[in-house]
Amino acid sequence: MLSSINTIWVLLGAALVFFMQAGFAMCEAGFTRAKNTGNILMKNLMDFSIGTPAFWIIGFGVMFGAGNGIFGWLDPFVMKDYSHILPDGVPVMAFLIFQTVFCATSATIVSGSMAERTKFSSYCIYSLCISLFIYPISGHWIWGGGWLSSLGFHDFAGSTAVHMVGGVCALIGAKMLGPRIGKYDKNGNPRAILGHDLAIAALGVFILWFCWFGFNGCSTVGFTGDDTILSASSIFVTTNLCAAVACCTTMIFTWLRYKKPDVSMTYNAALAGLVGITAGCDQVSPIGAAIMGVIFGIVIVLSVEFFDKVVKIDDPVGAISVHGVCGALGTILVGVFAVNGGLLYGGGFKFVGIQILGVLSVAIYVAIIITIVFTIIKKTIGLRVTPEEEIQGLDSTEHGLASSYADFFMPAVKGTTFSKDVSELIADADNVPVEKAVPVTKVSTVSNDVDKNKFTKIVMVIKQEKFEALKDAMNQIGVTGITVTQVLGAGMQKGNGEYYRGVPVDISLLPKVKVEVVVCKVPVETVVEAAKSALYTGHIGDGKIFIYDVENVIKIRTGEEGYDALQDEE
Amino acid sequence: MLSSINTIWVLLGAALVFFMQAGFAMCEAGFTRAKNTGNILMKNLMDFSIGTPAFWIIGFGVMFGAGNGIFGWLDPFVMKDYSHILPDGVPVMAFLIFQTVFCATSATIVSGSMAERTKFSSYCIYSLCISLFIYPISGHWIWGGGWLSSLGFHDFAGSTAVHMVGGVCALIGAKMLGPRIGKYDKNGNPRAILGHDLAIAALGVFILWFCWFGFNGCSTVGFTGDDTILSASSIFVTTNLCAAVACCTTMIFTWLRYKKPDVSMTYNAALAGLVGITAGCDQVSPIGAAIMGVIFGIVIVLSVEFFDKVVKIDDPVGAISVHGVCGALGTILVGVFAVNGGLLYGGGFKFVGIQILGVLSVAIYVAIIITIVFTIIKKTIGLRVTPEEEIQGLDSTEHGLASSYADFFMPAVKGTTFSKDVSELIADADNVPVEKAVPVTKVSTVSNDVDKNKFTKIVMVIKQEKFEALKDAMNQIGVTGITVTQVLGAGMQKGNGEYYRGVPVDISLLPKVKVEVVVCKVPVETVVEAAKSALYTGHIGDGKIFIYDVENVIKIRTGEEGYDALQDEE
Amino acid sequence: MLSSINTIWVLLGAALVFFMQAGFAMCEAGFTRAKNTGNILMKNLMDFSIGTPAFWIIGFGVMFGAGNGIFGWLDPFVMKDYSHILPDGVPVMAFLIFQTVFCATSATIVSGSMAERTKFSSYCIYSLCISLFIYPISGHWIWGGGWLSSLGFHDFAGSTAVHMVGGVCALIGAKMLGPRIGKYDKNGNPRAILGHDLAIAALGVFILWFCWFGFNGCSTVGFTGDDTILSASSIFVTTNLCAAVACCTTMIFTWLRYKKPDVSMTYNAALAGLVGITAGCDQVSPIGAAIMGVIFGIVIVLSVEFFDKVVKIDDPVGAISVHGVCGALGTILVGVFAVNGGLLYGGGFKFVGIQILGVLSVAIYVAIIITIVFTIIKKTIGLRVTPEEEIQGLDSTEHGLASSYADFFMPAVKGTTFSKDVSELIADADNVPVEKAVPVTKVSTVSNDVDKNKFTKIVMVIKQEKFEALKDAMNQIGVTGITVTQVLGAGMQKGNGEYYRGVPVDISLLPKVKVEVVVCKVPVETVVEAAKSALYTGHIGDGKIFIYDVENVIKIRTGEEGYDALQDEE
Repeated sequence: MLSSINTIWVLLGAALVFFMQAGFAMCEAGFTRAKNTGNILMKNLMDFSIGTPAFWIIGFGVMFGAGNGIFGWLDPFVMKDYSHILPDGVPVMAFLIFQTVFCATSATIVSGSMAERTKFSSYCIYSLCISLFIYPISGHWIWGGGWLSSLGFHDFAGSTAVHMVGGVCALIGAKMLGPRIGKYDKNGNPRAILGHDLAIAALGVFILWFCWFGFNGCSTVGFTGDDTILSASSIFVTTNLCAAVACCTTMIFTWLRYKKPDVSMTYNAALAGLVGITAGCDQVSPIGAAIMGVIFGIVIVLSVEFFDKVVKIDDPVGAISVHGVCGALGTILVGVFAVNGGLLYGGGFKFVGIQILGVLSVAIYVAIIITIVFTIIKKTIGLRVTPEEEIQGLDSTEHGLASSYADFFMPAVKGTTFSKDVSELIADADNVPVEKAVPVTKVSTVSNDVDKNKFTKIVMVIKQEKFEALKDAMNQIGVTGITVTQVLGAGMQKGNGEYYRGVPVDISLLPKVKVEVVVCKVPVETVVEAAKSALYTGHIGDGKIFIYDVENVIKIRTGEEGYDALQDEE
Repeated sequence: MLSSINTIWVLLGAALVFFMQAGFAMCEAGFTRAKNTGNILMKNLMDFSIGTPAFWIIGFGVMFGAGNGIFGWLDPFVMKDYSHILPDGVPVMAFLIFQTVFCATSATIVSGSMAERTKFSSYCIYSLCISLFIYPISGHWIWGGGWLSSLGFHDFAGSTAVHMVGGVCALIGAKMLGPRIGKYDKNGNPRAILGHDLAIAALGVFILWFCWFGFNGCSTVGFTGDDTILSASSIFVTTNLCAAVACCTTMIFTWLRYKKPDVSMTYNAALAGLVGITAGCDQVSPIGAAIMGVIFGIVIVLSVEFFDKVVKIDDPVGAISVHGVCGALGTILVGVFAVNGGLLYGGGFKFVGIQILGVLSVAIYVAIIITIVFTIIKKTIGLRVTPEEEIQGLDSTEHGLASSYADFFMPAVKGTTFSKDVSELIADADNVPVEKAVPVTKVSTVSNDVDKNKFTKIVMVIKQEKFEALKDAMNQIGVTGITVTQVLGAGMQKGNGEYYRGVPVDISLLPKVKVEVVVCKVPVETVVEAAKSALYTGHIGDGKIFIYDVENVIKIRTGEEGYDALQDEE
Repeated sequence: MLSSINTIWVLLGAALVFFMQAGFAMCEAGFTRAKNTGNILMKNLMDFSIGTPAFWIIGFGVMFGAGNGIFGWLDPFVMKDYSHILPDGVPVMAFLIFQTVFCATSATIVSGSMAERTKFSSYCIYSLCISLFIYPISGHWIWGGGWLSSLGFHDFAGSTAVHMVGGVCALIGAKMLGPRIGKYDKNGNPRAILGHDLAIAALGVFILWFCWFGFNGCSTVGFTGDDTILSASSIFVTTNLCAAVACCTTMIFTWLRYKKPDVSMTYNAALAGLVGITAGCDQVSPIGAAIMGVIFGIVIVLSVEFFDKVVKIDDPVGAISVHGVCGALGTILVGVFAVNGGLLYGGGFKFVGIQILGVLSVAIYVAIIITIVFTIIKKTIGLRVTPEEEIQGLDSTEHGLASSYADFFMPAVKGTTFSKDVSELIADADNVPVEKAVPVTKVSTVSNDVDKNKFTKIVMVIKQEKFEALKDAMNQIGVTGITVTQVLGAGMQKGNGEYYRGVPVDISLLPKVKVEVVVCKVPVETVVEAAKSALYTGHIGDGKIFIYDVENVIKIRTGEEGYDALQDEE
């Protein structure tokens, strides 16, 4: 007889772990650049969409078949009997969907470290390989009744089986691809490449944390019996506590290390804590979980720096450190912090030894297989896009997508939303037929006698925060017609030593505001003096004023030229 | 006695299906333009907020009342007895909230196809009509014990009852509104109007997929008994598999058709697969679901193109194709793929015939009623905003909202965050009283003798990717003071044949960088030669250099003019 | 024996209420400015991360310990016996995580009203105090067996215990901080400071609404027995209905009051309805909930205006009104609308009296304690950042984060993604070695004889919606080489009286497009006439045309100068 309770718990877990795909997609998109956003969204959709049928056709059988200690069996479409491995009272279909979403999690991790430079076709192929056999084989060892589970290796919800498998692939992939163009300068020093949207990246982390209650909590694959109820409840507490403490630790650690608490690193720490506790969330006490949180909170910072600065492997989102390093470390620490049998609770070294053995054997296995896969791809269709494609961005070159943020980066495309015939339509609405729209005063356009006075354009390039003061000053001397443009200015003034994920941000261009006025009646000297008054602080970066000659000015509405054209607003 | 298990399952489903509102809102907002985002968010909030009391006061009784085969009963505030239709052990309040969120889903679908041009007041009215009687009446036929359910029509979770009803309204609405201004050129060829934020659109799709586990899975409205447990588990698998395979199919199909895998179309395919499987998710095998996924993955592309290019109905988000076409097709295919009684499994044509009859009768009924509703609205308050309002954007004209992205589009508003009095405050903090801020060297501003040399402005309009090389070249010849502006340039160079949802993107304006330097000591020729060296590739689009005379330059911090003002950074 | 059903319900609630953190983070980030986004995301992550261990170490014991009517007990790490207060069949760990996420909700509310100007270190400290003892003590009175619960005070899911506690802290905090720079003009009139991303703010509200089904529904802390099943089902309906009706009410009310339905206020109304119904969601009928929705929908608008315009407390996201005012009012209204014992249902004034007493005593207690906390912080490390830091933005000054939206605000940083060595790499790929990139025609750069004709730059500053017409007009006279820049223009034309949350938006600068063409062969007069034809409507804001002399033009690809450089595209 099937169990309603157990199956609901498993299906709830499946839905939550599926939703992690959204979390990974937002995280990866937010921590990378806008020119690759469409490509990243596509990859995150496709690894799940490719992985789902792949796991159904091959992966599930390989992982859970009652073959031998190394390999399950081939069972296309999950037709065989899995009663030897099914949780109590849970039908095979519920178990299949639950395991499918775990598999997809492993595949999607790799995407992050290889972001912004991998060919999309290659991505699809290696992602398929992960779901087809790489993840299922080591998964069989750990969860499918294979040799590691026989030894007593404990990886409750997949610090190793899911996260480290993804993390090792991420490491090998990022290493084989090489860094993004511009990531390292001539001397090999890393440069910060800022993510384009921290809000969605943060949302991604919150989604992942939320779903982790399903990832870890529902990995009891049942909810009947006091032991299971107690276990699931405890898992919720340890999972949450480890992540929270990791965040506190990283906040303090980066505050000390970089002088300011680092936003994106602290968000990474949440994931580090969640990945790290996953293997032992059912075995450690809340106090153990909190201590582990401190460890992961420090390790994540050092590990990100290590890969960035020492090994010089470019991992845009920190996937290697979060999933690989903290996944491995978390698995090993089960042997230390497990209430039953952990080193700190009187267990011997055997448990730790088995944990280390499991981590190493899985890591070596995955490293070898994924290296073969990547090498074959590299030798055939190629792993990386061309430098031109990378610089232009993968949205455009890989997907023919002009921009994922059209209105922000391509305002001209907005222009295509109305054309000549429509402007007629609008003119009609205005009761001003276009053919009569030419203004009444038909004066010769570039005649010389309109120069009642000399026209002068005064351009001021200033700090953003001084704009309002300048505007007020212009108003006071009677100049109200101004044009404002956001520009970037380079000069002696430099950015003020900002850090992003432990790497100094190189900003030799600073945001400035360019203010243009054209005057005729108002003397240029008056404008310049008013501007100097408004803008002067005596500090570097006060800005510059440029003065140009203007030949003529025409006001479109009235057809007035020169002096007259400026009168209502100069 | 009530059932804890069954009711939990129903309430869980209610919460998840409610959350689809977030998915629809993000999808629709992301696939449209930034100038209408606030309006779209408002519509998505209000269709749910209007629909909830409407369904409570009228809709629920109409749909589930034990009236006759056509119509339930009037039962304001759900006071009557519904034991004839309530799921086993589920109280009426749980059933009410579950059905409310389904109703709201149907109403929100229409929003997408009519986006960016519908009057907000009209939107509220027709949305009310859908929740009040349009959806409940056909819902009664299918789920309320009406004539279609008596015939054996099978629509498990609402491919027809929810999605096609929304899709037909979307079709009629988009047709009656006409296309957005600029969607078709003079010759009637469609133009791509890109969405403004694919990241939130993708998030919307992931949210919808997540919630679909509730939409389909929880439509068992119970979770007790082995049959139900097996059914719900199988539904999770078929739902997920159909969506995943649809994505794979569309990715490959667009890759072949447009030469590159289309991001937004593939995300649409996920929804197409989810909508399509909804009617038969409990009746088809996983293999059947996968085959249906292939069908929906191809149909969605052809259908979007058909409405865009052939029928020329402008549907900004593809709602007609996703919900209308795939909803209808999915319902009919139940008669083909149902394991019990489907054509492929030895069932006769009668089942398919009933499915077709159901789809047609509901489609015709909805089309007639919604046409009447739209016509009345059109003749009274009007259905569409004016062309000026549409061009300006509905955020501003319908809601008085200056922008949904103020900091991005209206940096001037940022300026209002500090005013004169505050600039004094800051100046104080700088220990530089404003009245003394006028610089020391008080020279006549536009005197002639400052022209130690001629000042020249050199403006270079170049490719973005060449900027860094140009900056280095300028540094090498001693010019460090540059101003950079992002501009759009038109010339002989055209966009490179990009597609968006099957329609070529018209980009005659390409993003460029404008770099301005003003020199005095450094010869103009040196600057030009250095720029040419840095920028030349021999390809079209290398850019142009413009040379202007400058009358004077003033450095604000020091008051230096002309030659001196440029010396530290030229 | 433990109850599977009850514990699943509690854990489901814990996961959902945790996810509210994402909702609050998106809401607060979206309703504020982009320069503070990273800081806001960091605060929302840290209040939860700090609150989790704080509640575990101190808070939980204080709140649920069996001490006396005022205070529980000290029980670091939750080691004591809580069987006196645990829900039936729910283990202490499940209850702990459930209560932890409620506590964190209270803490995170404060963040919103103090946004954009609070020191991050101070934030961490007072957030810790809230989780450590402020929330737990009043929580003990209400839910921990304290004196208010003995009196019969009814606050089912925390309108007072969670929301009003947060709201009172928000009020005191915002008052002590003072308004953001620029919020009030010299005369004390409020100015609108628009949020930077309404899409994520709206997403935040949808997430909160979704999670509120857990917040209220799962506060039955069990799901066994017909009474509980009926209660939970009813709670889903009343919670949803109150929020929906509040939205309808606010939409209509703002439509009447501001002439247009206000987007952000209506989204606030959803939260107002949810907060308000929380205390009595189990006690009121659906009709009662709907009426309360009307009340909250009106009160939220008046309250936001009251604090903004009358009391002049700057609350960027409306937290005081949503959580403080509607939380208090909702609690009191339980005494009116409760089906059992409410004033409208024949209960006496005693129940209302107790509700009022509870609200007042908690409000006074919290106000006193938080004032002490804020005062100590203010006197020691300081509560508010400096004006310079505030103007520059907290991302940069508090976290060293250059921008949360780097690609949008700092395109120069994109430039750092490729450097000289890479541009060589690309040149190689182009088969054009850099050293040979100097064009073939080596003419003297600024020679005089290239002036076959005079070169003239014509600059048009126009309305965005006229751009396409202008482009067509330029094409027709043979001018195809144009440069387009988005600028802001000030002149006689003013913004059209837009409102944001009841406050007029001050937009003296309007978005414009600057179009530049340089002509030689084509007469200037022809360009000006064509432009006037295309742009003229006779309305203010048609724009201006400026004419400048150009000294020379060089085409980089060919090295052509002057007349020749313009020939293919003029």
